[in-house]
Amino acid sequence: MPLYRNATSLLLLSFVCLSWRMCHGGKILILPLEGSHWVNMDIMIEALHSRGHSVDVVWTNKSWYIQDDSPHFNTITVPVTEAFNNDFINEILKKIFAIEREESSVLSFASLQAEMFAAMFNMHRIMCKMATGMFKDKDLMNSLKESKYDLVLTDPAWGAGILLAHALKLPLVYNVRWITSGEGHRAIAPSPLSYVPLTGSGLSDKMTFFQRVKNFLFSLIWQAQDAFFIRPQYQAVCDKFFDPDVRYNDLLQGADLWLMRVDFVFEFPRPTMPNVVYIGGFQCKPAKPLPEHLEEFVQSSGDHGVIIMSLGTFVSELPADMTDNIAATFAKLPQKVIWRHKGERPATLGNNTLIVDWMPQNDLLGHPKIKLFVAHGGTNGVQEAIYHSVPVVGIPLFFDQYDNLLRLKERGAAKILTLATVDKDNNFQDAIQDVLNEPSYMLNMQRLSRLHRDQPMKPLDTALFWIEFVMRHKGAAHLRTESYRLPWYSYHSVDILLSFLATVAAIALLPLVFVSFLCRKKSLKRKTSKK
Amino acid sequence: MPLYRNATSLLLLSFVCLSWRMCHGGKILILPLEGSHWVNMDIMIEALHSRGHSVDVVWTNKSWYIQDDSPHFNTITVPVTEAFNNDFINEILKKIFAIEREESSVLSFASLQAEMFAAMFNMHRIMCKMATGMFKDKDLMNSLKESKYDLVLTDPAWGAGILLAHALKLPLVYNVRWITSGEGHRAIAPSPLSYVPLTGSGLSDKMTFFQRVKNFLFSLIWQAQDAFFIRPQYQAVCDKFFDPDVRYNDLLQGADLWLMRVDFVFEFPRPTMPNVVYIGGFQCKPAKPLPEHLEEFVQSSGDHGVIIMSLGTFVSELPADMTDNIAATFAKLPQKVIWRHKGERPATLGNNTLIVDWMPQNDLLGHPKIKLFVAHGGTNGVQEAIYHSVPVVGIPLFFDQYDNLLRLKERGAAKILTLATVDKDNNFQDAIQDVLNEPSYMLNMQRLSRLHRDQPMKPLDTALFWIEFVMRHKGAAHLRTESYRLPWYSYHSVDILLSFLATVAAIALLPLVFVSFLCRKKSLKRKTSKK
Repeated sequence: MPLYRNATSLLLLSFVCLSWRMCHGGKILILPLEGSHWVNMDIMIEALHSRGHSVDVVWTNKSWYIQDDSPHFNTITVPVTEAFNNDFINEILKKIFAIEREESSVLSFASLQAEMFAAMFNMHRIMCKMATGMFKDKDLMNSLKESKYDLVLTDPAWGAGILLAHALKLPLVYNVRWITSGEGHRAIAPSPLSYVPLTGSGLSDKMTFFQRVKNFLFSLIWQAQDAFFIRPQYQAVCDKFFDPDVRYNDLLQGADLWLMRVDFVFEFPRPTMPNVVYIGGFQCKPAKPLPEHLEEFVQSSGDHGVIIMSLGTFVSELPADMTDNIAATFAKLPQKVIWRHKGERPATLGNNTLIVDWMPQNDLLGHPKIKLFVAHGGTNGVQEAIYHSVPVVGIPLFFDQYDNLLRLKERGAAKILTLATVDKDNNFQDAIQDVLNEPSYMLNMQRLSRLHRDQPMKPLDTALFWIEFVMRHKGAAHLRTESYRLPWYSYHSVDILLSFLATVAAIALLPLVFVSFLCRKKSLKRKTSKK
Repeated sequence: MPLYRNATSLLLLSFVCLSWRMCHGGKILILPLEGSHWVNMDIMIEALHSRGHSVDVVWTNKSWYIQDDSPHFNTITVPVTEAFNNDFINEILKKIFAIEREESSVLSFASLQAEMFAAMFNMHRIMCKMATGMFKDKDLMNSLKESKYDLVLTDPAWGAGILLAHALKLPLVYNVRWITSGEGHRAIAPSPLSYVPLTGSGLSDKMTFFQRVKNFLFSLIWQAQDAFFIRPQYQAVCDKFFDPDVRYNDLLQGADLWLMRVDFVFEFPRPTMPNVVYIGGFQCKPAKPLPEHLEEFVQSSGDHGVIIMSLGTFVSELPADMTDNIAATFAKLPQKVIWRHKGERPATLGNNTLIVDWMPQNDLLGHPKIKLFVAHGGTNGVQEAIYHSVPVVGIPLFFDQYDNLLRLKERGAAKILTLATVDKDNNFQDAIQDVLNEPSYMLNMQRLSRLHRDQPMKPLDTALFWIEFVMRHKGAAHLRTESYRLPWYSYHSVDILLSFLATVAAIALLPLVFVSFLCRKKSLKRKTSKK
């Protein structure tokens, strides 16, 4: 009898578990972006997994950053012959160092821009090739269709996930920092160029006339790049596999939800749309205890505290002379320094500086002894600095890094050094001393941190809520305008203005026509009367 | 000893309570709007009071709607000689009935518009007079200053609260449905006229060319009304009491927070700003049990269920013939009807219809027997209908009521009848039968209700969170753009476009000028050589 009862309980329990899973556990298909973008996606995947969702990640046999040994997701491999990798970034970095430090001529700057342009084009070409490969693989597509996913989660900086969602007729959610058509200047919401600076422009929301001209030109360049080099590549895939009236731009803008990896403590206030949810700092969490040797090193700093330096995922090595200069500067400081550095050990390294291959950045930033973060300005690092209220000395390298640091500088929580000047005079040392000794930097960062943490829900929970919302309601069409389907002249009411002008002109001309008609008639009469 | 211990506990408890109050209990100054707007403010005040905040409400000795016997707030009386009241609305209503039902000529329509225009002007005139009275009253202003409020909460449809917040240098929060400068077409966020319909235009977010022309014209009218009749009145008060560079428009747009009484289940998706928080349906709550006589009446309906009809706060009486027609229609139905009606008892009233002076609308809408809501389309009623998923037959009267009902109709959850046709043929009966018998109306309303209720936080809690956020951080400047300070030609980049055109023109003309210069020089040479 007890056995029978236990068996019944077990059956009941498994039924409850099963029905919970059926209610709560969705199936999510992810097409991620490599590099630091993956770091974010991976955190979200872990959270989705812990909520009982099953996650499949599309990756290629040549992925250079994504590992497929995670307990949180399964991988679906797409065989490719060509893939995007780290090499091109290293090449570009070398050029940037050379240009910024030695030969900063207009010509070399233009050649760098052209190279970055070409790299961007190439990246999207590889993406489109991968998408084409997928869509041609009938077995793969059938198996994806049969898997009955609830939604596709992707990073729209690359468009293959967008195409995949359309092919599978699934709701589409973005995990997004920016998109190549200009941080959603046309996609997210109307973005007046007078106060919404473009990614990469290095501008704030308060601009002089000439800064606004720069922003305007940037917008033209972004739009041209998008219209001539990026969109046509994806449109070609659409034309090949989808109905003839499918426009890639509509698919991109028709996403159900945009989970933006910024918030308005970090970002300048700007127009937004109801289906854009701000989850900036969703990866931040309280610090865990440090490994013993690090804790010992940190504690040995006494009241002076510790400075940490890291230049992010891509860059571990700087030019040797710059490295020496930085090491020499650190050596002069009473603080201890932890420096993530992979190259040769600088000759000028002081006893106070610990060089590491990798550091538990979040745990260090959350340690009360950390006084300053020397950072390249990646979005993640900046958000973590805000979360843990550690002021920053920034050395931006490329992409949006200067823009990210500018957002801290404008709030009085950071100083920015350029590659060209970081090792000139005492610039680096002065910047460090300033940020360490002037209390306003710390106070401002603490204010940002307070604002960032004062939210009704944690950003990661917000992200999960909205992903599950889209699953529950099979989309979020009610939050999305379809105004992008309007032709540009209708969108901007140009057709109405022109027809008003035409009407006014017609009304103004009417008396004139009438008078000239009368005059002609009179003169004709005269002529006939003369005859 | 036990006494001593009890006394200590009591002391400790009161200390905890006191410090909780000091941490959590803010001081809020409210300058409300009369009529149905007050209904909303009152609910918010009760919630603020229950959170431990102390609330003072500015009212006049001639308030016609606000009662000062609430346990939730204190009143601060401003003596006025003139006040806004219900009479003008009744006058306008009579005109509307006459025009819509008998003499719908262009002339009578224009005269109605002029009258409403004049009423609007007059309303703001009285408001400004009240503000002037307040600012002149040194004792009152000193006592307000000394009260050290944490913020001013007001409805920006009337501007006196905005002026008061500036005078007291306090953070400013709006509890807002729309503002007279066109539902924030310029204030909230960029609002392309191609897909953001103006309040009162009766348009949806999907417009034909001629509908877009209508929206454009509406926008011009709203802007003209604001620029010539409303803003100057408030500006005059600013000029009298504030520094010479204070612009009323800046004060209006510079609010820290907009608590909008809509959500995107109700509202068409549109651009918004980070400091606009959507709290639509914040007044909705689960139904309480009905009074015994009502419950009995409702239960007597059997499977047919009950229809309820109410035309809102202002309108309790319709023209007699219309009332008779409506009563006769109700009499033919198998359902029971509860009708909020104050005029004479219609001769054609059926046994199935219960006439009431007032009804517990929210509790009735939440009752499972209620099948249909005949409503005028006030925002509150529409939001309550969504919350309780009761489909609607709408008879809009004025202001935003048609627009509100249109939002339901566009989602297939309501039918709209005009005053002109409601008692013609079998229109009213047909509409009721349609909405009752066609399951899509109920299904669509249930879908809206599911979407509306699926939020991370209840709308009222969201409102409270953000009001307290503004108190904690003494404002929310980081969520607010100051782009409204830009002149219009900079805001829209017109200056940049013009200077581009000028540059292009100059470049195009340069060769021409050069050639003509050469020609002149040559001809001069010839002339001199001839000599």
